[in-house]
Amino acid sequence: MTDKFVSIRNLRFLLHEVLNIENLTQFDHYSDHSRETFDLALDTAHKIARNLLLPSLQEMDKNQPTFEKGIVHVHPVVKEFIQECGKGGWIAANASYEADGQQLPFSVTTACHFIFGAANYSASVYPLLMYGAAHLIESFGSDQLKREFIPSIFSGKWQGTMALTEPQAGSSLGDIQTQAIPTDENHFLIKGQKIFISAGDHDAVENVVHLMLARIKGAPSGVKGVSLFVVPKKRRDESGNLSPNDVNVSALYHKLGYRGAPIVQLSMGENGDCHGYLVGDPNKGLSYMFQMMNEARLAVGVGAAAIASAAYYASLEYTKERRQGRRLFDKDPDSEPIRIIDHSDVRRMLLFQRSIVEGSLSLVLQCCLYSDMAGVTTGDQKSKFSLLLDLLTPAAKTYPSEMGVMSVSQGLQCLGGYGFCDEFPLEQFYRDIRIHPIHEGSTGIQGLDLLGRKVVMHDSKAFVLFLDEVCSTISVACEIPDLKPYAEKLQHEINALREVTYGLMMLASSGHNEDYLEDSTLYLELFGIIAVAWQWLKQGIAATKQLERKLSQSDQDFYIGKIMTMKYFFLYELIKTYGLIERLSEEDGLTANFDDKFFAD
Amino acid sequence: MTDKFVSIRNLRFLLHEVLNIENLTQFDHYSDHSRETFDLALDTAHKIARNLLLPSLQEMDKNQPTFEKGIVHVHPVVKEFIQECGKGGWIAANASYEADGQQLPFSVTTACHFIFGAANYSASVYPLLMYGAAHLIESFGSDQLKREFIPSIFSGKWQGTMALTEPQAGSSLGDIQTQAIPTDENHFLIKGQKIFISAGDHDAVENVVHLMLARIKGAPSGVKGVSLFVVPKKRRDESGNLSPNDVNVSALYHKLGYRGAPIVQLSMGENGDCHGYLVGDPNKGLSYMFQMMNEARLAVGVGAAAIASAAYYASLEYTKERRQGRRLFDKDPDSEPIRIIDHSDVRRMLLFQRSIVEGSLSLVLQCCLYSDMAGVTTGDQKSKFSLLLDLLTPAAKTYPSEMGVMSVSQGLQCLGGYGFCDEFPLEQFYRDIRIHPIHEGSTGIQGLDLLGRKVVMHDSKAFVLFLDEVCSTISVACEIPDLKPYAEKLQHEINALREVTYGLMMLASSGHNEDYLEDSTLYLELFGIIAVAWQWLKQGIAATKQLERKLSQSDQDFYIGKIMTMKYFFLYELIKTYGLIERLSEEDGLTANFDDKFFAD
Repeated sequence: MTDKFVSIRNLRFLLHEVLNIENLTQFDHYSDHSRETFDLALDTAHKIARNLLLPSLQEMDKNQPTFEKGIVHVHPVVKEFIQECGKGGWIAANASYEADGQQLPFSVTTACHFIFGAANYSASVYPLLMYGAAHLIESFGSDQLKREFIPSIFSGKWQGTMALTEPQAGSSLGDIQTQAIPTDENHFLIKGQKIFISAGDHDAVENVVHLMLARIKGAPSGVKGVSLFVVPKKRRDESGNLSPNDVNVSALYHKLGYRGAPIVQLSMGENGDCHGYLVGDPNKGLSYMFQMMNEARLAVGVGAAAIASAAYYASLEYTKERRQGRRLFDKDPDSEPIRIIDHSDVRRMLLFQRSIVEGSLSLVLQCCLYSDMAGVTTGDQKSKFSLLLDLLTPAAKTYPSEMGVMSVSQGLQCLGGYGFCDEFPLEQFYRDIRIHPIHEGSTGIQGLDLLGRKVVMHDSKAFVLFLDEVCSTISVACEIPDLKPYAEKLQHEINALREVTYGLMMLASSGHNEDYLEDSTLYLELFGIIAVAWQWLKQGIAATKQLERKLSQSDQDFYIGKIMTMKYFFLYELIKTYGLIERLSEEDGLTANFDDKFFAD
Repeated sequence: MTDKFVSIRNLRFLLHEVLNIENLTQFDHYSDHSRETFDLALDTAHKIARNLLLPSLQEMDKNQPTFEKGIVHVHPVVKEFIQECGKGGWIAANASYEADGQQLPFSVTTACHFIFGAANYSASVYPLLMYGAAHLIESFGSDQLKREFIPSIFSGKWQGTMALTEPQAGSSLGDIQTQAIPTDENHFLIKGQKIFISAGDHDAVENVVHLMLARIKGAPSGVKGVSLFVVPKKRRDESGNLSPNDVNVSALYHKLGYRGAPIVQLSMGENGDCHGYLVGDPNKGLSYMFQMMNEARLAVGVGAAAIASAAYYASLEYTKERRQGRRLFDKDPDSEPIRIIDHSDVRRMLLFQRSIVEGSLSLVLQCCLYSDMAGVTTGDQKSKFSLLLDLLTPAAKTYPSEMGVMSVSQGLQCLGGYGFCDEFPLEQFYRDIRIHPIHEGSTGIQGLDLLGRKVVMHDSKAFVLFLDEVCSTISVACEIPDLKPYAEKLQHEINALREVTYGLMMLASSGHNEDYLEDSTLYLELFGIIAVAWQWLKQGIAATKQLERKLSQSDQDFYIGKIMTMKYFFLYELIKTYGLIERLSEEDGLTANFDDKFFAD
């Protein structure tokens, strides 16, 4: 089998030729960087991924974490990788120089995490959680918390986690019950249970630092009474040594995939001795946590695209080697069987995968660039980029996740019976990627977030900005004869999206709230397809520009392939909007008003 | 958790109220039967499924077959179930009285296999393969072969298999190389390798009888030189004892799912002593094997619908128990959380599953009825039913398989994080069902079969008959005010299907053969959606008729639920044809003419 799992060339194409991230270096914050330092980051990540992560991919799946005598044991490569990440500055890469970071743009580090995730998704999650936890403390924590926790996390000695979910509070975070009882000292006493905590405990680190939502005794009900705490597994005693903080693993989940990372159930304060340290103000925990959740949502999107990338290259390789059948209408049974990539339907399955992987990745990186731009601009500019990021995040989380599942499934299908067997990696990818439509806010939740909040916020300002972004891409593409028909197709869809959206808002303003949101998941699907079509058109424009130059044969093939994959997306994927638009234009409230007694028998 | 995995009431509805299978009892062959004997079969199957198969579902997954010292060991319940099937006449149920069968219609036994498959898909496969193998010998074998093999298979002592695939011949059966060398005696000497043989060897039976494709030495190349043989694992020596026949297991596959059934690699004739017995005439093996393959394709369709049924009921139960969140726009954080089935999006996921499960099942049973009718009619009638069966088989195999994967995935999604964990059965169903789009002819092969062969055969006679069938359902539905809008939608789709099909045929007749077939998989998808919409309209008609009678509350809810699920299918699933029709109307040859160098990097 090939050991190819990503295309570095494609990453460079997206970052430099489509997104022009070099523009970021005009801003002070990124002025020490250049195209060269960005590329160096990609190449280094690729080396680590190839040499350290990829060789353990199957092993980490077959030898799941174990839970013995209260300790969660993970594969030894986890420790090696985390230490490498600490040493190489990967965990702190986005952080400021003051926080010992490298001030790398989020778009670049996300590209690096794509590389890690494609080599070994489970392994790639550990440092991401570390950065997210440290960043949360950096943004909202006291100086003391920063000093105490950030250096140990950035150096790879301590794991960070996000500890939100409870048995009765999954999607509904307002129902969190974990208690925080104030004391006379500088800490609260924490008592409660958390479930589904990724990397919630393991033996590759000295300590685990939970960024945990809890409710201060007497706080208001619902989301307005949720606070954020740092709750470490071990805390420092008076002499500065680490001692247990009454945080215990009560169970380790056995999962379909994503098996290289332990997901645990935690119990805090069984002995009344679990200290938690408040982050920021009381009762504002959920708004703080959204920073980490939004980062995590983009990380889920890029992780899904990464697994789909690995599946795509594995199936591409197989279809070039496997010989079976003959060209249609070749009736000579003695002719040599052809490679299966020479069958149209197999090429369709490969183009499908490529269009999903590269379209999804493009959308996530676009969001990361908005995030980077929001960080270095001010006023209207800053507001524009922040709004676009907010609007697109549900789609950048969901499209790669939902379509990534389909993409990997087609990769598996390319291998026929072998795809179903564990001699080949496809069946693992198929299991691994299935978590993505679930974790960090399920698809249904993302749909409600998009249609119920993001599209309507600030008088639909973000939505209007998005339409402008797409329309300006369309204008450029209309000037290119080969792209014009596709630009016109997208314009047609954008018009339909606008119409559907305003139709739904009318429904809401006339008081039909349940009907308005009943198909929000379909709305998200529609929105995602259009957003990815926009990204493909941008890629088509960039590739066309390159083809005007004198190119090597291989570069020429690459850019022509890009344009053909763009065409594939428009001809085979964009058409899926037709049915969605029809459905979203109907107003019958079928699911909103369906009584569950009709599920009788 | 619930132990509900099928709706017997729905099966009765489909068999009696939609398909009116009681009409079969007018024919001599079925004259001993009645609605009561049919229902008795369902109830008995349900009892066996509940008491024997369901309790071993997870165990058989966790304790896969093992291969030690040349012997494949399976879970003990397999033996118990096979013996029960032998004793209860299940394996021979379709066979004639002369062959010690029960002359039950295929539609009834398929409903029973649906029940078995929903309880435990892996287990349900063993008797199916037994019947298929015995039926093949019954149809084409000599009297001696019948006497020697059929009774032992029907009684559950000997396993039957279909042994087609070889390392270099999967989808391309014309490339089979297993050799059959004639001898002076009544047997051939077989030499070769077979891969992916379901139930190809195991310790729950005394012997395994392979219905095997091989090539007689000197036979023509390709499909015209393939013959069918009976190749037992053990053969009778002169004294009538069973002794080894030089058929050995060379490997056992480790699979994503469907783990309760061993899939093996076989090696025949390593010691030059493997006897095979020719079935029928030389070089006609493939045409004989198509009988078993077509039966197996329907079995795959019903098996997929069965797993999706189990997943549907498991998720339905969960959504009625799990409480999370509040109604949209309920801002009181202290109000009681609602059951997740009370969220529109969850109901959508449940309706999706139900519409797939019951629509798929309906289509497969329709095919079975055509098969039953073809068996008892003559002349034009027989030809009509045979043609409809031939045409619909690719869709009845593929629609349940492809959409079943999606359906189970939505079931898993209903459980959120728990769906990903092995405490609940969804993750197993998700793994089990993924084989269905692959085995017995992958989806791509089915697409080529439908568009390249079935639609055009006999001057499109089968296709025209199908349009007639659908149109006559539409006519009836148009007389029912509540159904008329849906009947009109289907008429619209039928017109589009006709147009698309004739457009594609024009392309073929103008010599653009590759372009004509490049999207045959999409054509199959389109065809499947329309065929299932037709089945839903039939169900809508039947339910409407029942609602005219005086009914119990529970019956009324059932029929109203049926009609609402039909509406769901038309509003959410039938619309998927819009994009497909658009794509199938374009003629650019994108995948047919795509050079694989454009997959560069």
